[in-house]
Amino acid sequence: MENKRPLILICNDDGVRARGIIHLARTVSSLGDVVIVAPDDAQSGKSSALTVNAPLMLAELPELDGIKVYSVTGTPVDCVKIAIHAVLDRKPDILLSGINHGSNAAINNIYSGTMGAAMEGCILGIPSIGYSLQSHSPNADFDPLTPYIVDITKKVISEGLPEGVCLNVNFPARCNPKGIKVVRGAHGHWTEEYQDFATPHGTPFYWLTGKFHNLEPDNPETDEYWLARQYGTIVPIRPDQTATDKIDDITELFRN
Amino acid sequence: MENKRPLILICNDDGVRARGIIHLARTVSSLGDVVIVAPDDAQSGKSSALTVNAPLMLAELPELDGIKVYSVTGTPVDCVKIAIHAVLDRKPDILLSGINHGSNAAINNIYSGTMGAAMEGCILGIPSIGYSLQSHSPNADFDPLTPYIVDITKKVISEGLPEGVCLNVNFPARCNPKGIKVVRGAHGHWTEEYQDFATPHGTPFYWLTGKFHNLEPDNPETDEYWLARQYGTIVPIRPDQTATDKIDDITELFRN
Repeated sequence: MENKRPLILICNDDGVRARGIIHLARTVSSLGDVVIVAPDDAQSGKSSALTVNAPLMLAELPELDGIKVYSVTGTPVDCVKIAIHAVLDRKPDILLSGINHGSNAAINNIYSGTMGAAMEGCILGIPSIGYSLQSHSPNADFDPLTPYIVDITKKVISEGLPEGVCLNVNFPARCNPKGIKVVRGAHGHWTEEYQDFATPHGTPFYWLTGKFHNLEPDNPETDEYWLARQYGTIVPIRPDQTATDKIDDITELFRN
Repeated sequence: MENKRPLILICNDDGVRARGIIHLARTVSSLGDVVIVAPDDAQSGKSSALTVNAPLMLAELPELDGIKVYSVTGTPVDCVKIAIHAVLDRKPDILLSGINHGSNAAINNIYSGTMGAAMEGCILGIPSIGYSLQSHSPNADFDPLTPYIVDITKKVISEGLPEGVCLNVNFPARCNPKGIKVVRGAHGHWTEEYQDFATPHGTPFYWLTGKFHNLEPDNPETDEYWLARQYGTIVPIRPDQTATDKIDDITELFRN
């Protein structure tokens, strides 16, 4: 048996040309053999969606500093599945997704294509991490994240993660984090979700916008609390959404 | 205060014209005032995806036996959000999604647009249920499900659900269920996921297919076990994916 370097699969939802994924690939290139398999265009808000009723095309792009780069005409989850099916010759040792341009804290985990990819890796038994920066600025500075990403990634490569659990890592917008907190996602939901328009012919239409309504802004057990205070956050995420602690309650509810 | 009948919002992912949603609307029409807001075309596998970078159009369609029917040019989650924003004049008393043509048992919950809609309702504080039948046949018989759907829906209208929890209800393909079991989703994942093709010009492409690999086929705690034995299943689902029971482990992992 040859002594192989760790195989690192990188995906995202902002597309293969996004600054965040390029920064991530360069950041971890010293830790193993990196392969990028990412959507050919922006796939924000795609959650764990997969392409059921259309073909997927895979393209090999020019290498990035010796890193192999592939694009897929699909969602982040499609990218992970195609990477396993058609690109990699063995199961990767770790899957990294991001760095997302924008927050995936709190309930945003469920809408996030970045976390869709990370959760797909987890479902397939690969230790998986999603990285996000709370900034949509085209000039966002990813450099201050580098030592945190290296530390977290190295630790997970060497120690693994609990079975069935992946990590949702978020960094604050002004990005010199004061430190890192392991917490849970804040409870909340979006409000004022649409801006209303009318076509030139008077037909109404709607465009998604909205504000996140945090139900517990003062709770230090939550990611939003620490992100607002310039800390990075790590939330352990379980793709299996069964509320096992409520099975007895629901059983009781339906016992006539 | 007038004594209002329950307001029942119905969504799905197979589209507003699917037989399953029409059957569901008719089944519960005696239980309250029903409004259908569903995708204008098939949205299978859309998970909790939302439309970020395109407008959404809302259309009012002809009534169905006195039931108001609207279509949205978006995902199941978009439909729920638009229903709240632009269709309903108050928060619905219950959200029903389905009846899906095909299983949403086990890990399929995470890919399912049907459950995407139900989880969105739950996030917004609405008691929510997704109904699915394990058959893709265009002639699938939904009639045997009627008494079960009436019972489950009535109970949830009158008793509610635990906060932050919705229900994923699946019925077996040959659809005279022997009964209903409240269980957890079976652990497993998909394998052999793509069929390989080549274009007339020799370029490879891929189409999603695959087999569900159940890691615990003999475990009576799981939905797949009982569905295989002709029972319907109810799995309590928590949209918040934080693995709160692993926060201590992950904290320990990253200590120094």
